[in-house]
Amino acid sequence: MSERENVIDLNSDLGEGFGAWSMGDDDALLDIITSANIACGFHAGDPAIMRRTCDRAVSRSVTIGAHISYQDLAGFGRRALAVEAARLRDETLYQIGALDGIARAAGGRVRYVKPHGALYHSGSSDAEVATAIVTAMSEFDAGLGLLGPLDSELEAAAGRAGIAFYGEGFADRAYTPESRLVARSAEGAVLAESAAVAQALAIAQSGTVTAVSGVAVPVRAQSICVHGDSPGAVAMARSVRAAMQDAGIALAAFA
Amino acid sequence: MSERENVIDLNSDLGEGFGAWSMGDDDALLDIITSANIACGFHAGDPAIMRRTCDRAVSRSVTIGAHISYQDLAGFGRRALAVEAARLRDETLYQIGALDGIARAAGGRVRYVKPHGALYHSGSSDAEVATAIVTAMSEFDAGLGLLGPLDSELEAAAGRAGIAFYGEGFADRAYTPESRLVARSAEGAVLAESAAVAQALAIAQSGTVTAVSGVAVPVRAQSICVHGDSPGAVAMARSVRAAMQDAGIALAAFA
Amino acid sequence: MSERENVIDLNSDLGEGFGAWSMGDDDALLDIITSANIACGFHAGDPAIMRRTCDRAVSRSVTIGAHISYQDLAGFGRRALAVEAARLRDETLYQIGALDGIARAAGGRVRYVKPHGALYHSGSSDAEVATAIVTAMSEFDAGLGLLGPLDSELEAAAGRAGIAFYGEGFADRAYTPESRLVARSAEGAVLAESAAVAQALAIAQSGTVTAVSGVAVPVRAQSICVHGDSPGAVAMARSVRAAMQDAGIALAAFA
Amino acid sequence: MSERENVIDLNSDLGEGFGAWSMGDDDALLDIITSANIACGFHAGDPAIMRRTCDRAVSRSVTIGAHISYQDLAGFGRRALAVEAARLRDETLYQIGALDGIARAAGGRVRYVKPHGALYHSGSSDAEVATAIVTAMSEFDAGLGLLGPLDSELEAAAGRAGIAFYGEGFADRAYTPESRLVARSAEGAVLAESAAVAQALAIAQSGTVTAVSGVAVPVRAQSICVHGDSPGAVAMARSVRAAMQDAGIALAAFA
Repeated sequence: MSERENVIDLNSDLGEGFGAWSMGDDDALLDIITSANIACGFHAGDPAIMRRTCDRAVSRSVTIGAHISYQDLAGFGRRALAVEAARLRDETLYQIGALDGIARAAGGRVRYVKPHGALYHSGSSDAEVATAIVTAMSEFDAGLGLLGPLDSELEAAAGRAGIAFYGEGFADRAYTPESRLVARSAEGAVLAESAAVAQALAIAQSGTVTAVSGVAVPVRAQSICVHGDSPGAVAMARSVRAAMQDAGIALAAFA
Repeated sequence: MSERENVIDLNSDLGEGFGAWSMGDDDALLDIITSANIACGFHAGDPAIMRRTCDRAVSRSVTIGAHISYQDLAGFGRRALAVEAARLRDETLYQIGALDGIARAAGGRVRYVKPHGALYHSGSSDAEVATAIVTAMSEFDAGLGLLGPLDSELEAAAGRAGIAFYGEGFADRAYTPESRLVARSAEGAVLAESAAVAQALAIAQSGTVTAVSGVAVPVRAQSICVHGDSPGAVAMARSVRAAMQDAGIALAAFA
Repeated sequence: MSERENVIDLNSDLGEGFGAWSMGDDDALLDIITSANIACGFHAGDPAIMRRTCDRAVSRSVTIGAHISYQDLAGFGRRALAVEAARLRDETLYQIGALDGIARAAGGRVRYVKPHGALYHSGSSDAEVATAIVTAMSEFDAGLGLLGPLDSELEAAAGRAGIAFYGEGFADRAYTPESRLVARSAEGAVLAESAAVAQALAIAQSGTVTAVSGVAVPVRAQSICVHGDSPGAVAMARSVRAAMQDAGIALAAFA
Repeated sequence: MSERENVIDLNSDLGEGFGAWSMGDDDALLDIITSANIACGFHAGDPAIMRRTCDRAVSRSVTIGAHISYQDLAGFGRRALAVEAARLRDETLYQIGALDGIARAAGGRVRYVKPHGALYHSGSSDAEVATAIVTAMSEFDAGLGLLGPLDSELEAAAGRAGIAFYGEGFADRAYTPESRLVARSAEGAVLAESAAVAQALAIAQSGTVTAVSGVAVPVRAQSICVHGDSPGAVAMARSVRAAMQDAGIALAAFA
């Protein structure tokens, strides 16, 4: 169960265009979510897009987080890259600082960090990567929160450093009996909208979901990740938000 | 004459390597200068180099400035690029923020901004460019200083915005009767070491230099720019520092 | 009038995505056009997109051209950049060679060159830029054609170098009495579909258009540029193609 | 033993600057080597540097090879990057084509391919990577040679595709009893100049070296790799060349 009774955060990836290219329906999402993971120019985003996204997040009272990544525009940050730990720490500082500079101009501040793509995955399982990220956060501002996968090296590193960790759950992804996500390639890995809405509610209300095996397993998430990369995704995000409100669960940023 | 009696700042461009490539003798310069213009990744520099440079600047009590640039690694920021004003403002915020994030981890902060290369030139003569830079500075932290060319659009824009402006003089470049630099391609444009040291002293002591025409002209500089891109440049920078100390002129950062 | 009786080429910009980002409806256009200006990675395009675009162009017998640009992914090649002439020549060789390497693997070859965006404009009016481009073409393969603006420095440079030049006309843009495009910002600059189709026919049939002043002016175009960046643009391109076929005008690549 | 009696090739990495940054003493090496591995802009090199390097290689009759890499300027191509095989094939085509376009303008052609850094390593041990590279070579020009590590997946893939493979040996690196390089971090891994010259001679004369265990092991290299990144490296390269000539071994490109 969430440590916050009857409160949940909805987060989504925003500002993932680059130059002339756009991606996702940021405007629609900003009316749904409470926390915006804003790309910092390493996998997507550029200063103009970051400014526009921060301006709009601030005007709708959506909390700003730094969606940090490996430096890989060509691969959208989805490719594992062997970056040495000290450099990764400095790349994290660079990205948080850059977004915070822009957020400040927009009247906000960076409140949390969420790793993107390949960095999310390596940070989950590689203690050195997780420590590099958390060290940068401590150096920048020990009050930043870390949003990431539950029971991960990121959670462990945050714990060691005294950084607040917030676990993220997924509405539309099936869970294993070990509270892990079923691999996207497996049958039944992705839930249809009604099942997804029910799972989101279960996470917010009881901190448990029904795994593919049928047993209830814990998912202690303070935030649920929603997407805006297709009309269907936006519709699902809207349904999740509506279901929360109908159930009397408050939507509020964790950070 | 400097507004600060018997005090002068020496600034230089640092951290201008990228990845596996290095440039200049930063270590030597850090023992000479009082203000370090540190590249922010747009014309040179990367997070690891920025960290190393900030660490060393802090350990030697050298003030950190953001050496902002057009985004042009391939051209080292020396090529004019038609960036629209709002984007330039946001690119300035991005760079200041990124360096400040790293400076903070190193125990310092960004105290001033100096445009690099083509941006220095366009900021000198183009009011829209100058205003974009100064607007970003105001948005980030109105206490930042702006280091740049005297009698320029940058100085004017800073004045309008209430940003402290610091003019920069050149030891080894001849001046016209209008207090402008003689074009580098013209004969006599670059002074030999002894003349350069004398000119640096004159700037610091009287705020005037002897122009190519033989007349004394004002150069109200609070900082003198020195270079580290050759053994000769480092030797000249050392001589300028020694001459200042011999003449009882204190070396201190303006910001 | 076209030098080729009753024959016209339709060209369009293809392969303008980058990494995870896409742009335009290439599939629709490939059924309409006879010449594909394929981005070479400098303003858009990456090796995987270039390969896919070449594969599809070859399979539909659409001729491949190199859509060369200033190196500016962040600005989509739309920003003027002060590149020295010798470097621009080498950047042109790099782009033509890169696309030709991929085209070859797809069973095709690069047959012509069309500058993109800011390079199209600077090549129109700047003899040094135009000469740099044409010199690279001569060095790579003197049999390449150059597609570009009529009565331009590009046409003149091609003439001097013995490179075949092909002028391009625009269906949906109004012309001045001097056979120039009316600035996009002026009223009446962009034609509606029916007027655009009529203008395309006029270019193909008589090599003349009716300028905004009402007089007939020459537009000696061998190719007409169509777009795919919106459903309306694709529909217009389809209408232009249909009108040509109804009028007995053959559609065939110039190169 | 070399298949070519009393003939050896000397190769080195050239053109590894980028923009304003330089690396290595290319001029000195061009008087020593017979094959130049020229960077293609992915880990180093840009069109202007590629042109200058090709011009000089052609004028000294040094054979041109494409030194292909993962796209990683920030990491100099030394970091493993998870690129999918089809994209890697297309990136290889892009790089070979780009360099060939420039080489052609300089009066030469690309004759062979050598992977750089992390791609050299992954190509050695990963059959999918090796096949992607070799497939691109076949698609571009089946007459290209592949220069790389002996007994590697690259050699195997070349064999399957009918691409000529040329093994490379190292003068200054100790070998294991399995004909592998001793890890650079191990004691005795790097040979002093006199031992390196002797080992280069042994490779050229007998195709064997004395491993760290004292036993003679085969190193069937057609080319020996030399470096130019320090005055000592250039001096060693010069000594290797002189020793070959003194021993009556001809220096000639393999491709």
